[in-house]
Amino acid sequence: MNPCFDQLTQHARETALLNSVAELLQWDERTLLPAAAGTYRAEQVTYLSGQVHARRTDPRIGEWLSDLQAAQADLDPHSDAGATVRLMQRDYDKLTKVPQSLVEAISRASILGQQTWAAARKNGDFSAFAGPLQEIIKLKREQAEAVGYLDAPYDALLDDYEPGETTANVATVLEELRQELVPLVATIADSPRRPDLGILRRKFNIADQERLGKAAAAAIGFDFERGRLDVTDHPFCAEMGPDDCRITTRYDEHFFSTAFFGILHEAGHGIYDQGLRSDQYGLPPGTYISLGIHESQSRMWENLVGRSHAFWRHFYPQAQAAFPAALGSVPREDFYFAINDVRPSLIRVEADEATYNLHIIIRFELEQALINNTLTVADLPGAWREKYRHYLGIEPPDDADGVLQDVHWGAGLIGYFPTYSLGNLYAAQFFAAAENQLGGLDDRFAEGDFGTLLDWLREQIHRPGQCYSARELVESVTGLPLGHEALLSQLRAKYLPLYGLD
Amino acid sequence: MNPCFDQLTQHARETALLNSVAELLQWDERTLLPAAAGTYRAEQVTYLSGQVHARRTDPRIGEWLSDLQAAQADLDPHSDAGATVRLMQRDYDKLTKVPQSLVEAISRASILGQQTWAAARKNGDFSAFAGPLQEIIKLKREQAEAVGYLDAPYDALLDDYEPGETTANVATVLEELRQELVPLVATIADSPRRPDLGILRRKFNIADQERLGKAAAAAIGFDFERGRLDVTDHPFCAEMGPDDCRITTRYDEHFFSTAFFGILHEAGHGIYDQGLRSDQYGLPPGTYISLGIHESQSRMWENLVGRSHAFWRHFYPQAQAAFPAALGSVPREDFYFAINDVRPSLIRVEADEATYNLHIIIRFELEQALINNTLTVADLPGAWREKYRHYLGIEPPDDADGVLQDVHWGAGLIGYFPTYSLGNLYAAQFFAAAENQLGGLDDRFAEGDFGTLLDWLREQIHRPGQCYSARELVESVTGLPLGHEALLSQLRAKYLPLYGLD
Repeated sequence: MNPCFDQLTQHARETALLNSVAELLQWDERTLLPAAAGTYRAEQVTYLSGQVHARRTDPRIGEWLSDLQAAQADLDPHSDAGATVRLMQRDYDKLTKVPQSLVEAISRASILGQQTWAAARKNGDFSAFAGPLQEIIKLKREQAEAVGYLDAPYDALLDDYEPGETTANVATVLEELRQELVPLVATIADSPRRPDLGILRRKFNIADQERLGKAAAAAIGFDFERGRLDVTDHPFCAEMGPDDCRITTRYDEHFFSTAFFGILHEAGHGIYDQGLRSDQYGLPPGTYISLGIHESQSRMWENLVGRSHAFWRHFYPQAQAAFPAALGSVPREDFYFAINDVRPSLIRVEADEATYNLHIIIRFELEQALINNTLTVADLPGAWREKYRHYLGIEPPDDADGVLQDVHWGAGLIGYFPTYSLGNLYAAQFFAAAENQLGGLDDRFAEGDFGTLLDWLREQIHRPGQCYSARELVESVTGLPLGHEALLSQLRAKYLPLYGLD
Repeated sequence: MNPCFDQLTQHARETALLNSVAELLQWDERTLLPAAAGTYRAEQVTYLSGQVHARRTDPRIGEWLSDLQAAQADLDPHSDAGATVRLMQRDYDKLTKVPQSLVEAISRASILGQQTWAAARKNGDFSAFAGPLQEIIKLKREQAEAVGYLDAPYDALLDDYEPGETTANVATVLEELRQELVPLVATIADSPRRPDLGILRRKFNIADQERLGKAAAAAIGFDFERGRLDVTDHPFCAEMGPDDCRITTRYDEHFFSTAFFGILHEAGHGIYDQGLRSDQYGLPPGTYISLGIHESQSRMWENLVGRSHAFWRHFYPQAQAAFPAALGSVPREDFYFAINDVRPSLIRVEADEATYNLHIIIRFELEQALINNTLTVADLPGAWREKYRHYLGIEPPDDADGVLQDVHWGAGLIGYFPTYSLGNLYAAQFFAAAENQLGGLDDRFAEGDFGTLLDWLREQIHRPGQCYSARELVESVTGLPLGHEALLSQLRAKYLPLYGLD
């Protein structure tokens, strides 16, 4: 088509190629890098990231986009070409609004923030982290002012991770969820029925865990011809090319769930990446919509599929065959109850499917208050404890297992937490729509048929890339705006019978 | 010092950084890359290699070097700064003399050459490879003409791998070696004493092979804090930063030698890379001298140390403990004889320490004749068979195990083969000098002391980097010019008693 369009997209594809190389450098750093090689690796990553940032703010992009304005008016904004121009304009405007000095200040503060956070957490000493956190909040406010926002500065930060979403909308939905979730969790916590968690704490040979985890990932649709599974302390999913998506996990020889559900979760992320169109790699139509949508895919496969009755009707014989000593004589119902244990706990990353969202709501409320100046950093640990008491009925014994447990704020990630719960909300809403449109998903899973759901996700969620925003996609796929009802119904339908509360 | 010098070296360090990233991409491609990711990986490597080549031929380098000419006259040419300017001038001149169109033609012909070679080898059909090989020879001649040479076009090609060395000198030394080696090998082949090779063909569990191989690599000095060992079909050593040197091997559960001596060999390469000065990374004083010197280090550790009596006096109990069923009742002398089996064979990469050099001499003579137009490509297979009959007393049954066995010529690597034998010649000469200066190396190895030799190599061979040429280094370290005597003495001293010929 237009030569400006060709130049624009060719430039973006080259930027994506450089960025994919930086992804490999970082993946390798987290999985394989020799101990002494960290310093030079940091130089390599910094150099490439600098090149990527320089390319993304290249003034020629502004010129090409400006030349494309007239043509753009004739394009369907949701077509590949229309979305490409529209979203590259959005990204370019956002990036060029933040002065280079502020970008660098945030980068420095985030490195310092992570370092002081790690030490403060180790020593359980929040005061050591207070100064660097204060600086990060100040800089993130400056970023919000530089980028601009409609209602609240937090809008501008949320937009980095969930483009087009607003604080007010998320706050409304999460508040509605909270009001029903707090009593539901309390009811479950009071139930006398408890699973035997010892089942999951028996000995599970690591090589067999890896084999079973890979079989499960492949069964739900992760393509190992276009990806890998490796080992890290902090599991993640990274993409270093259109046909190279790598997931990682960690193994605990004495706990079944860590690796198995971790692999399903990361495979869910990977399946989304693998479902994006390769020929649009590096362009908006070939890019994931938002962190919330990404998370909806990992959580759907991990929880709505992987922790379902139907999944284990199909998969439990394989698990028993892999671990005859640990699971051979355990009834499937006992295993199913154990992997679906719900109880209020202190640590987000170990929380179950139901209480998890309360951990997120706490962080979402607190980080908004910090950005809005209605909460001081000094008062943060107290506010944290109060919300845990209030929403979960428990209180951390110290800040290490409280306000210091997550790296996000120290790393400058403010506005990121709500995307985890958005993922749960989207997943529940998409899953209900899939059941509605496809019918009989449980029976399909019980027969080992995950391809029917996968094909639907490919078509409805993965293929469009960024041609629709998360909000538009939710409405078009499910016929409803984002709401808390699907998630709450799903939790009630699953947990009330399990805990004898129906 | 001089601001031009700072700009020049800063530029070179950035080029080295980009190149180290390309090295990681290629290492990852050969070890881990998902099957479907090859196409995009090729794009990534091509993009970065293009950037590296553009930087290395950046006209600013010529300007900086020209501004440094006056200052250079005052510098010791073997000092770090003197060598830096001198060798960057050499490299820049060489690179800029070859027209871009020829660089690209050679690159294309080498890709096609490897593809057609692989198919031709599979089918044992030399004629399918003849055309692409003819084209490569034509282009390599053009390259030699573009770069220039003193005596023979082959000088210019050899110089790419063994800078400063001449065809005439290598030809003289290898001819002297051949004249004594051919009868020595024939005498050994006629000896009625033969080792029991079955010892090495028992079952050797791969995980135990890996453990033993890593222990041996660490014992001789490979630093696993600054490196890794992984698995590939074609073992290699690659450096992707000053503190990141990765070696690979392949395991054969029913053959001890492949992995064990392969690991010692690659660890020897790695030990050299790890001994180069990190603060000079990317500059001549921090760069290996030549392929021959690199190979001298791998072959010294593999053969002169790793296949020595003394090494196994120390290490055999560990090997027996690792493989009690296979080696527990095998006397050390029988094991030692088996790992030092000498016999004429057809395949270079499987050849023993003594016959290996005859494989190289054959290739060196043939590739010179091809470049000099005294041998046609059509006559190459016949010439190959004749030389094998003449030098090794055997003849390949077909071209797949004959002239088609190596990838080098198809990949455009002409002038590369002699560096393998130069490695053996350097190694023998360095090792004799080390024994002369340090004394009692055998007793040290038998006590597990490899550090004394390593420290000597670090100081004499590794630390200078390119400040001295290979030829200068051999003379200054050993007091003698390159010759065949040290290697021949070492082979005689080892093999005549072993085969009862002394």
